[in-house]
Amino acid sequence: MARITPLSGFPEWLPDGRVVEQHVLDVLRRTFELHGFAGIETRAVEPLDQLLRKGETSKEVYVLHRLQAEDEEDATAPRSEKQLGLHFDLTVPFARYVLENAGRLAFPFKRYQIQKVWRGERPQDGRFREFTQADIDVVGAGELPYHYEVELPLVMAEALGALRDVGVPAVRVLVNNRKVAEGFYRGLGIEDVEGVLRQIDKLDKIGAEQVAALLVSEQGATAQQAGACLDLAAISGSDATVVSRVRALADEHGAGTELLDEGLGELAALIEAAAARAPGVVVADLKIARGLDYYTGSVYETVLVGHEDLGSICSGGRYDTLASDGKNTYPGVGLSVGVSRLVSRLLSAGLLAATRGVPTSVLVAVSDEESRATSDAVAAALRARGIPADVAPTAAKFGKQIKFADRRGIPFVWFPGEEHQVKDIRTGDQVAADPAVWAPPAEDLHPRVVPAV
Amino acid sequence: MARITPLSGFPEWLPDGRVVEQHVLDVLRRTFELHGFAGIETRAVEPLDQLLRKGETSKEVYVLHRLQAEDEEDATAPRSEKQLGLHFDLTVPFARYVLENAGRLAFPFKRYQIQKVWRGERPQDGRFREFTQADIDVVGAGELPYHYEVELPLVMAEALGALRDVGVPAVRVLVNNRKVAEGFYRGLGIEDVEGVLRQIDKLDKIGAEQVAALLVSEQGATAQQAGACLDLAAISGSDATVVSRVRALADEHGAGTELLDEGLGELAALIEAAAARAPGVVVADLKIARGLDYYTGSVYETVLVGHEDLGSICSGGRYDTLASDGKNTYPGVGLSVGVSRLVSRLLSAGLLAATRGVPTSVLVAVSDEESRATSDAVAAALRARGIPADVAPTAAKFGKQIKFADRRGIPFVWFPGEEHQVKDIRTGDQVAADPAVWAPPAEDLHPRVVPAV
Repeated sequence: MARITPLSGFPEWLPDGRVVEQHVLDVLRRTFELHGFAGIETRAVEPLDQLLRKGETSKEVYVLHRLQAEDEEDATAPRSEKQLGLHFDLTVPFARYVLENAGRLAFPFKRYQIQKVWRGERPQDGRFREFTQADIDVVGAGELPYHYEVELPLVMAEALGALRDVGVPAVRVLVNNRKVAEGFYRGLGIEDVEGVLRQIDKLDKIGAEQVAALLVSEQGATAQQAGACLDLAAISGSDATVVSRVRALADEHGAGTELLDEGLGELAALIEAAAARAPGVVVADLKIARGLDYYTGSVYETVLVGHEDLGSICSGGRYDTLASDGKNTYPGVGLSVGVSRLVSRLLSAGLLAATRGVPTSVLVAVSDEESRATSDAVAAALRARGIPADVAPTAAKFGKQIKFADRRGIPFVWFPGEEHQVKDIRTGDQVAADPAVWAPPAEDLHPRVVPAV
Repeated sequence: MARITPLSGFPEWLPDGRVVEQHVLDVLRRTFELHGFAGIETRAVEPLDQLLRKGETSKEVYVLHRLQAEDEEDATAPRSEKQLGLHFDLTVPFARYVLENAGRLAFPFKRYQIQKVWRGERPQDGRFREFTQADIDVVGAGELPYHYEVELPLVMAEALGALRDVGVPAVRVLVNNRKVAEGFYRGLGIEDVEGVLRQIDKLDKIGAEQVAALLVSEQGATAQQAGACLDLAAISGSDATVVSRVRALADEHGAGTELLDEGLGELAALIEAAAARAPGVVVADLKIARGLDYYTGSVYETVLVGHEDLGSICSGGRYDTLASDGKNTYPGVGLSVGVSRLVSRLLSAGLLAATRGVPTSVLVAVSDEESRATSDAVAAALRARGIPADVAPTAAKFGKQIKFADRRGIPFVWFPGEEHQVKDIRTGDQVAADPAVWAPPAEDLHPRVVPAV
């Protein structure tokens, strides 16, 4: 168990857990960069009025006060416009960054951003008050071609797929499209699209029968309209038949609209590209409603196969207006990996482990304190060739120095002398070696993350 | 100018500035890992009573309130023990982490930690409200050998020295030792050691004459004692004569003590090792007083040569009690790089620059939207061999697509076709190429940081 949480909702890892998290972050970063996303960071704070602009009080923002200001001022005074809060996601600060730097960025602008975010919610399994997100977004100036809605979930599928070999389960990216749902509902004669989406979002919790009842009692749908909405939500699949089934359903109810056609065209393009580039990963799932109230095109959720109870570990979608300064509008599409949620499950379920919690590959022993400089020189020679090396803390008996290495999972102990020797403490094999030449096997050079056996 | 600071004290970088910062962070991390430091992260918040334990109100802690709690509760109610603040350094959270996990860590425990910290101070040049620190510390259980006080500043000197080739100026690590100052003062018959250190700390600001006057008027020193303190503070150098000069001064004033001898022995060991391992970098400077009130042995400050006005970019020292839980005491020694302060100066002084702000090495052109999949396949083939590639956003005229690459500093544009071609847009050279084989020159593969010409 690498996890320790003495302050509920603020996860921290022991060094071996951090090796796992760092590996996840390194793989995500590498994949994002291979696809041309530029890395940026934004400050942790935004003006409170910006954070609350969309009425997102459900996110439970942490507001900041300077301790001394608190003593000085009346703490009950009305919030000033300059009051700052910690960001609860990386989308709001990115939108602000885009507006602030629009003249200095080249559009379409592809960026990744890996940072902590904070939400003062009640902590639960996989739901933290402080957690790391890894986001990719593409934002255009004025316009943004649809093909990015195909590309971005595939980049995420590739990034998460690159973690398969260390023991991360397969992912399934579930996709839907606002235009399909809205086009279909409008075709049925339903006006309150958001209201219907809110009810459909309850399907997993309360079941189809109850949702149908709510659609009638709350949204004023007819029984037939409610049935059609549920039939739409029941459609899912990873090939083109999804599109034909939706079309057949729309024909049956006379619910065809231009918007539906546009949405189905987009969904078909996404399914087709995904089937070619990441077979079996992307699944159209027409019951996905979360986020469809603010996304305007594609919407994505991602589950870890076998860990669906964890909820989505990577969500996002298309915004026609990610940002706007009155003069220009910046449409965007992006996804966000919940890194802490993912890593927390990987560790608590014991799906993988680090081979060791320290970077050190070689511990150089010290015969006596007078010859510490000799041991330092050996370590320096190894480091100069990229081999992480540490020197024993004291000139204790060699048995104790070997135990020091063993406790940390350091595979090799080096004994300086007229003839240098290096011992693999796992096998006991000890050989003569030259600090200017010898190297550990590649798999022992750095800590690795390996699947649980 | 890569710097933009619309919220004073909260620096953000444009993508090319972030390339520089990321390079600095990568080099620090690599050096720390080569020396066997394990990476950890701690949560951003600590209980307020922990943050204020040392009476550090001068650090201007940011206190957190949940927005909804604010509405619910009486904001003027006395602070509860659970009230949280943002950490103002990485030492306080590390000490807490050590105590919390003492049973699960192996001591001496070497860790590095690279995170943001927050201080609600008035922003100035090089002084921010949010900034990144990169810390290394070694902490022992009960005891910690002196040689770590030699090792750690040399690790930092190596890490910062590894940045020389991208244009970071040389650093000078200034060292002093609490035992030398205290041993000498006590030998002179001075009791108020902290008081004298506070006055000595003003030397650079108000000069020797005024400090001497203050030592007499405030600390009750005799003129002779004050003169001796100033003579000690005037000693500096990077070889063993520093030690003999201090000893001669002590003899002259009959100020020899066991503590002074111990301190001089330590200082001599540090100077000697530094002269061998990092010639010219470490300088003993007996006027360094900052931090000597809480450090108990060595103390370090680091200036960027030619940018001494910036102040220290890497400070630290030895604590006999980094942490204590009543039963056990954990001595430690560590240093902290002010990454934001360093990067801010590197960028604002134009000392270096990124070769480009995007990771992309190759832009794959698109002839028409129908053949986008062909361009995607070329990009995928390049990425599979570790070459960062992007695909043009639209099938615009090739001239426009080349301009797209040029604006971002992307060196190569790929034209798919029956015979693929790739153009170096800097030289105009265009050659036939195979996506499964061709690679850019190593220096064009990733953005690099290069010294300003």
